[in-house]
Amino acid sequence: MHQKRLKAVTENMKRRGLPQILVSSTASVYYLTGLWIEPMERLLVLYIRDNGECALFGNALFGLTPGGDVPLYIHTDADDPLTDLAKVVRSGVLGVDKSWPSCHLLSLMKQRPDVTPKLGSAPVDEARMLKDEKEIKALRSASRINDEVMEASLKAVREGAVEKEMAAFVEHQFALHGADRATEGMITSFGPNCADPHHSPDNTLVKRGDSMVFDIYIPIQRYWCDMTRTVFFKEISDGDRRIYETVLKANLAAEAMIRPGVMMCDIDRTARQVIEDAGYGPYFTHRLGHGLGIDCHEPPDNGASCQMLAQAGMVFSVEPGIYLPGKMGVRIEDLVLVTPDGCEVLNHYTKDLQVLCK
Amino acid sequence: MHQKRLKAVTENMKRRGLPQILVSSTASVYYLTGLWIEPMERLLVLYIRDNGECALFGNALFGLTPGGDVPLYIHTDADDPLTDLAKVVRSGVLGVDKSWPSCHLLSLMKQRPDVTPKLGSAPVDEARMLKDEKEIKALRSASRINDEVMEASLKAVREGAVEKEMAAFVEHQFALHGADRATEGMITSFGPNCADPHHSPDNTLVKRGDSMVFDIYIPIQRYWCDMTRTVFFKEISDGDRRIYETVLKANLAAEAMIRPGVMMCDIDRTARQVIEDAGYGPYFTHRLGHGLGIDCHEPPDNGASCQMLAQAGMVFSVEPGIYLPGKMGVRIEDLVLVTPDGCEVLNHYTKDLQVLCK
Repeated sequence: MHQKRLKAVTENMKRRGLPQILVSSTASVYYLTGLWIEPMERLLVLYIRDNGECALFGNALFGLTPGGDVPLYIHTDADDPLTDLAKVVRSGVLGVDKSWPSCHLLSLMKQRPDVTPKLGSAPVDEARMLKDEKEIKALRSASRINDEVMEASLKAVREGAVEKEMAAFVEHQFALHGADRATEGMITSFGPNCADPHHSPDNTLVKRGDSMVFDIYIPIQRYWCDMTRTVFFKEISDGDRRIYETVLKANLAAEAMIRPGVMMCDIDRTARQVIEDAGYGPYFTHRLGHGLGIDCHEPPDNGASCQMLAQAGMVFSVEPGIYLPGKMGVRIEDLVLVTPDGCEVLNHYTKDLQVLCK
Repeated sequence: MHQKRLKAVTENMKRRGLPQILVSSTASVYYLTGLWIEPMERLLVLYIRDNGECALFGNALFGLTPGGDVPLYIHTDADDPLTDLAKVVRSGVLGVDKSWPSCHLLSLMKQRPDVTPKLGSAPVDEARMLKDEKEIKALRSASRINDEVMEASLKAVREGAVEKEMAAFVEHQFALHGADRATEGMITSFGPNCADPHHSPDNTLVKRGDSMVFDIYIPIQRYWCDMTRTVFFKEISDGDRRIYETVLKANLAAEAMIRPGVMMCDIDRTARQVIEDAGYGPYFTHRLGHGLGIDCHEPPDNGASCQMLAQAGMVFSVEPGIYLPGKMGVRIEDLVLVTPDGCEVLNHYTKDLQVLCK
């Protein structure tokens, strides 16, 4: 157990009146124990009491070895995985991890009607939200690699480039830089496909005048990088140039205001205002960004409904975009680390407008 | 909506006394609607009543377009995603998908205390378990590609091969064959690493006498293939040969007995008995296999606690193994399709003992 992190969690539990919680997500268990376990449909639970007592529940296949500082409860594929856990939890309020699969929650509720489940991810999420030195180092290092991969990938764009092939190129670059397995995809969208912020790379060929969105992200040593750059192929229309400049202005305006004490939704508002003022408000269809660390999406939410205050140690994305259905799209995304007096942008690859293969 | 599949689901709902269910998993929503949506932390729900009425709830980012045969309820990142759903569900029993994140379930329970949530994946799982013709075609085709990739990958083994590099080779082969994105890893374990059934490829170098486990799986056109072969590098000891032959015998014995009406746990028992009789019982540490289709792991469970009867149309893996900690491991895995009078093994790559680079 990472004792300092555990202490932060139990303090958050006390503050929130959660005497006991179940931590189940791979990332949160890793954060506290250093063990990386992907349980798939099997049960994985780190049980924590607010006095710091812990217990780990997992399947024999996870390869957990006793002798650490946490009692282990191991079940096999032939057991009811909830049996041990149902014995250990106490009556009353129990905080439950937000992503814990309902099958486990419903089974526990059946076996222990005296337990009152409540959403209980906040104590760990709040601890994870404020990155410690080791985490900041990992995040910086991952983003530095992302800078290099972005540079190499945009250099590789040529006549005849196809979305899927560019995605494979990016993945290969990440692999060369020692990324953890490519567990998630990439976004390498060309032309009209750029208008879908979550477009999956397909066999679309790049055409003259296309916008090209490279939204590339991957975990490296368990911590994610995530950056988007939009470039243009061979030429750019005046309208597209204006859109690019608007998105860049929104990105810069948001980054310029980030410091401890700023409300997250105000950062979203600032970027959104720039885009609305340029007349593209309806075409910025998503939140400004998301927190990131061991998970690609984690608190804080950088969106219109997040009234949380920015704090030093938070890391999140700033990714305004304009998406014109059937035509094109532009997104410019950086990761920022909130520092005591402002923010550090973790990506360094240029945001200057680029027209490739001119 | 795929009406024939929906009808199977609503019939299962009636049989199980579930008047309404929430379907939330990407795979199940795809099975019924043909839409592939990975919601991450956002809300995705296909609501179904036993009279066949449906409604789809999703985030604006999912790109859902109205005009289909299912009413759409779209929320944005700025909304409480549960609002619409809480209005639509009826009082009383509500079946909930097993993997639905607890945050949504707890929020719905709070907003609608008159709703009684129950585990409700079975109606869809049972429908998905019996593959239709289109699905069988996709599964056969994916496994045919897996045969080719296995052949190419084992041919590529050479002195100096490293686990990670072989995993990348396999992924590249799959990419060349048009696999969907590599959303999951591979297992390419050498020597003692083979003793961990779920070992992640690392920088381990292959050594003379090593077992080499290639457990390679990927979705192709949304349907998974999954095959394991174990080969040996340069030489094989008599003890290892005996282990290989035992695992192969277990694999063949299980496959020979599969036909409609056989209890799943008896298939597991048959394979396990072969391994126990050879004295390796304690070293076969997992269930015999898992169902597979749009998900890599889905019902039926092919394990000691599954009392389900095999039925024509089921597809599952048969993957006995022997794992000697610190030494080696062998696993031989096929996918089988239960046919009206037996089973069809979907993998065709040889299971004969191979010693590579002799």
